[in-house]
Amino acid sequence: MSRWEPGARERLVVAAVDLFTEQGYDATTVAQIAERAGVTKSTFFRHFPDKRELLVAGQETLSRLLTEGIAEAPGDASPLEAVAAGLERASTAMGQATRELAPRLKAAIAASAELQERDTLKTVSLAAAMTAALVARGVPDPIAALAGELGVLAFKRGYAEWAEGDRGDRGAEGERGAEDDGGAEQELAGYVLAALDELRAASASLG
Amino acid sequence: MSRWEPGARERLVVAAVDLFTEQGYDATTVAQIAERAGVTKSTFFRHFPDKRELLVAGQETLSRLLTEGIAEAPGDASPLEAVAAGLERASTAMGQATRELAPRLKAAIAASAELQERDTLKTVSLAAAMTAALVARGVPDPIAALAGELGVLAFKRGYAEWAEGDRGDRGAEGERGAEDDGGAEQELAGYVLAALDELRAASASLG
Repeated sequence: MSRWEPGARERLVVAAVDLFTEQGYDATTVAQIAERAGVTKSTFFRHFPDKRELLVAGQETLSRLLTEGIAEAPGDASPLEAVAAGLERASTAMGQATRELAPRLKAAIAASAELQERDTLKTVSLAAAMTAALVARGVPDPIAALAGELGVLAFKRGYAEWAEGDRGDRGAEGERGAEDDGGAEQELAGYVLAALDELRAASASLG
Repeated sequence: MSRWEPGARERLVVAAVDLFTEQGYDATTVAQIAERAGVTKSTFFRHFPDKRELLVAGQETLSRLLTEGIAEAPGDASPLEAVAAGLERASTAMGQATRELAPRLKAAIAASAELQERDTLKTVSLAAAMTAALVARGVPDPIAALAGELGVLAFKRGYAEWAEGDRGDRGAEGERGAEDDGGAEQELAGYVLAALDELRAASASLG
């Protein structure tokens, strides 16, 4: 996506997550990340303000994709159908590289209280983004807020299941075909939309 | 509630919020808070580990009350009825002092990025506490997660409306009778349970 150096952004993310996992988040410097990725520190700072933001850089992209998907859903789509459109767009954009990174990212986050807080704040801001996109479609506030929360729950649950790769056969395929994102992209969307369906069904049992 | 010095805890909270509002969160020291509250620094540290935790000290109490209310709801209560029982118990425990503090607390939080993050993390942990209490009652995971989110949304929405005191007549009454918490306690629970009803109704319109 970078206009300056093709692939640098992705290499920086992979290098950072590897270093965080190997030696811890606090002990890792921007200089080390840049060196591991084979770029200069200046290149690092053209992509990220600091090492913490590197890990959550995907958030803005994710918010934008969710918002666009909701905004562009058919005019007669229900609130949850619009949420599903947003989730599908965002999930489809997350390819196999993200899946291979997911377990390492999870380990780095588990080892750092600061990253845990950042990760939690991220999910709250995704809910707010979806709620705002629904309000912009004319969905009344309490329904929009609820649908936004359901969307985030669905994304978290679907992503966790997908990242764990509990469908062994597809995981193995993914490892062999990391260059080809097609299958894995569809797969994340499938997990997330299944989780949304499950939550929709659960909402009938709240009593 | 303190076993050491009656009223010290409450005085520290009021003093801190006033100082945060007057001179900003960063510029306020523990020594200043203790002095304003008329206690020693040692007394401060018997109640709170630091000034940030002071502002969110109510969180643990709130989590406990929500959890107890959910655990002690009748065995045949639906997930949302159990959530309502938790919300009612927690709301009833928050008296008039909390309401008078609320606008000042809101101003202090609005002025500090650190406090905003802390406040966001607090709501996430309340949702997790309610979800765990529901799972302990045997509510299946996706339903429990959804009901926990609804509970937090209801609490946030009801609290915000109550704190704004948009029912002018009751607000005025409250100012005159700050020593008598009865009316105001009932009132918060009323706002929160009304918000939960509204969200329950909204869940039928998700599509």
